[in-house]
Amino acid sequence: MSSELDPAFETVPQAPARRIVISVDAMGGDRGPAAVVAGLALSAAEHRDIDFLLHGNEAELSALVARRPELKGRVRVVHAEGVVRMEDKPSQVLRTGSNTSMWSTIESLRQGDAMAAVSCGNTGALMAVSMIRLRKLPGVNRPAIACLWPSRGPKPFNVMLDVGADIKADAPDLLQYALMGASYARNGLGYDRPRVGLLNVGTEDHKGRAELRQAQELIASATETGNFDFVGFVEGGDLPSAKVDVIVTDGFTGNIALKTGEGTAKLVGELLRESLRATLLSKIGALFAMGSLKRLQLRIDPRRVNGGVFLGLNGTVVKSHGSADSTGVAAAITLAYRLARSGFQERLAQRVASLAEAAQDAGEGNNKNGNTE
Amino acid sequence: MSSELDPAFETVPQAPARRIVISVDAMGGDRGPAAVVAGLALSAAEHRDIDFLLHGNEAELSALVARRPELKGRVRVVHAEGVVRMEDKPSQVLRTGSNTSMWSTIESLRQGDAMAAVSCGNTGALMAVSMIRLRKLPGVNRPAIACLWPSRGPKPFNVMLDVGADIKADAPDLLQYALMGASYARNGLGYDRPRVGLLNVGTEDHKGRAELRQAQELIASATETGNFDFVGFVEGGDLPSAKVDVIVTDGFTGNIALKTGEGTAKLVGELLRESLRATLLSKIGALFAMGSLKRLQLRIDPRRVNGGVFLGLNGTVVKSHGSADSTGVAAAITLAYRLARSGFQERLAQRVASLAEAAQDAGEGNNKNGNTE
Repeated sequence: MSSELDPAFETVPQAPARRIVISVDAMGGDRGPAAVVAGLALSAAEHRDIDFLLHGNEAELSALVARRPELKGRVRVVHAEGVVRMEDKPSQVLRTGSNTSMWSTIESLRQGDAMAAVSCGNTGALMAVSMIRLRKLPGVNRPAIACLWPSRGPKPFNVMLDVGADIKADAPDLLQYALMGASYARNGLGYDRPRVGLLNVGTEDHKGRAELRQAQELIASATETGNFDFVGFVEGGDLPSAKVDVIVTDGFTGNIALKTGEGTAKLVGELLRESLRATLLSKIGALFAMGSLKRLQLRIDPRRVNGGVFLGLNGTVVKSHGSADSTGVAAAITLAYRLARSGFQERLAQRVASLAEAAQDAGEGNNKNGNTE
Repeated sequence: MSSELDPAFETVPQAPARRIVISVDAMGGDRGPAAVVAGLALSAAEHRDIDFLLHGNEAELSALVARRPELKGRVRVVHAEGVVRMEDKPSQVLRTGSNTSMWSTIESLRQGDAMAAVSCGNTGALMAVSMIRLRKLPGVNRPAIACLWPSRGPKPFNVMLDVGADIKADAPDLLQYALMGASYARNGLGYDRPRVGLLNVGTEDHKGRAELRQAQELIASATETGNFDFVGFVEGGDLPSAKVDVIVTDGFTGNIALKTGEGTAKLVGELLRESLRATLLSKIGALFAMGSLKRLQLRIDPRRVNGGVFLGLNGTVVKSHGSADSTGVAAAITLAYRLARSGFQERLAQRVASLAEAAQDAGEGNNKNGNTE
C-alpha cells in the first residue's frame, strides 16, 4: 500500500459486519472490577461494533455485567482465579501468575481471539507477561511504552515513547522508537506524516550523550522508510509543543518526564482550586467562570489521555492507569479499539520489517521499500 | 561547630558593618544590561548591606547606574570589552573569551573581591569558565547545578540537582550531590535537616539503573556525615512533594525534568488564560477572582524561583535565566546574597572534606567528623 493512500483511522474502509473484540483485564486496578465494567458500558454505548472478552472472577463479573443493559450479548466472561497485585514483582508473576486475569487477558490476544488487550494492572508485570507470551515483533530489540501528551499543535495530543518499558536504549533502539511512534501516531491518532523529535538537554547538534548524536543521524536517514519528518533535538519544554508530534527518548528519561509533567499539572490545578476558594470575591468569580474552568479541566484531565500503548510486540496492549475510573477505562478501550480497527498491528509489523530490510540494503543504496506501511 | 548550632541563614550572626559584595555580569542576558541594572536597584533597596561589582561596557553601565539613586556609591563598574553570546560554544569561550564580562565576573570571585557571582548568560559557557577559573572543590568529582522547585512542603521550595552541569553521574557523584544539595538547602533555604530523595522510575528498592541502587546504599550510609535524612527513591511526581526537600539526579535527567515541569506549568497557565477569556461569564468571573489569580501567578512565577546555583567549585556562582527581567535578576541576586551571608561556601567545603575523610576512615569505623559543617 503506498503512503499516499495511508488513511487516518477515521476513514479506514472496513467490512460493515466486522466486530472489534477487545480483551480486558477486569482485576488489578485500584478501583476494582466495578470501575472496569462501568468503563466497558461507556465504550459499548459509544462504539456499536465492539465486543469484549472480560477476564477475572466469573461470578463477580457476570453479576456486574448483568446490571448493564448496554453490555447485553457483547461480553464473554473468561474466568481467572488469580489477581496480579500492584506490589507483585514481574519476575514472580512470570513464575506463578499463569492463573491470573492479566495472563488470561494477554493469552486471548495471543490466540487471536481478540484484536487488542487492555489492563489497569501492574505495569511491570503487564509488560513482562506481554513480552513472554506475545514475544517481540521480528526486528524489534526493545519494545516501548508510548503515552499521549496534551499538545498545542493541530491535534490535541503528542506522543512520547519510551515512558518505561525499559530503563535504557541505544541509538538503534531510539531509531525503532521513532518508527514505531510515527506508525502509532498515524494509525491511532490520525497524523498524516508525523514530525519526530529526539529528547535532549539542548537543541544544538553537539549537545547530549553520544548515543543521542548517533541516534540523530540514524533517524534523520530513515525518514522516507518510516514516512515521518525529523525535527532534530527537542527539549523538555517542547513536549506539548506544536513543532513536534512524536517525542523519542529512553524509558528512564521518558518515565521521569511523564511523571514530572503529570505532577506539575496536578500541583498547578490544586493551587488554582485553593486560590479560587481563598476569598469571597474569588469564590464568586469561580461561579461565573465555572463553565470555562470545567472545559479547561476536561482538556487537561489525565483520565481523557489515559492509555499507554506497548509497541513492538506481536499484539497491541493498552495499559490504563491503575487508578483509572470508568471514564479512564473507557478512554483506554477507545484507544485499543481505534488501533485494532485501523489494522495498526499489521502495519507496524510491515514498517519494522522494511526498516530491517532498508538497513540490509543500505550498502547498495537500495531503498525500494521506502514507502510501504 | 556542632550541628545543633547549625543556624538557618536568617539568624547567622555577623559583624554589623560587614558588606556583602556580589559580582554581576551585566551582559549576555536576553534583555540586555538595563534589565540587570534594574534588578540591582531592586536588590539594593531590599538589602542595605549589598555592594556590587558590575562587569561589562563601562560607558553604557555607568550611564544606567547613574540613573538609579538606590545604587549611588554601591556599584563599581569593571570594564570588559567582550560579550559571551547565547550561541557561543563553551570550548570557544574558554579559548577566546578572557576579555568578556562573564570571564571578568568570575575573575572577581576568584580573586576574593566578591563573595558570590551572578550571570544571566550562556549556561554552558558560564559553567566552563567557572570550572576553569575557580576549579573544583577538593574532593568533588563533578560539580552540579541546583535549581528550586515549588513545593507543597513546609518551605516554599524544594531543591533539585544536578539540572545540567554534566550529562552523567555515577554513584559516588550522586552521593556528593546529596551532600552538596543538603548543605545548600540548610544555608540557602533555611532547612534544618533536609530530607534527601533519589530520583528514579519507581520507589521500590529493585527499580532503576544499577548506579542508582549503588547510590542508594552510599547515600543511606552518609546521613550522619551529611546531616540530612534519606527518604530513598522518589519519582517525577514527587518533585513538588512535601515528603522530600532535596531531589538528587544526574544532569541529563534533571535538565529534562526541570524543562518538562516549566513547560507544563506554562501550558496550564496559558490554557487557563484562554479559558477565562473564552466567554463573557468567565471574563466576569476572572475580574472577581483577579486578586486570588494574581497571588497564584506570583506563587508559581518562574521569575521568583530564578537562580540555578553551581555547587562544588571554589566559589558560589548563581546562574539566572537568560530571559530574566529585573524581578528575576533581583531574585538571583538575593539568592547569591543569602548564600554569601551564611558562609555557605566555607561550610560546603568542610562538609565535602569530611565526607572524603569519612570515606577514608570507613575501614576503621571512625566517623569523628560526622557532625561538623
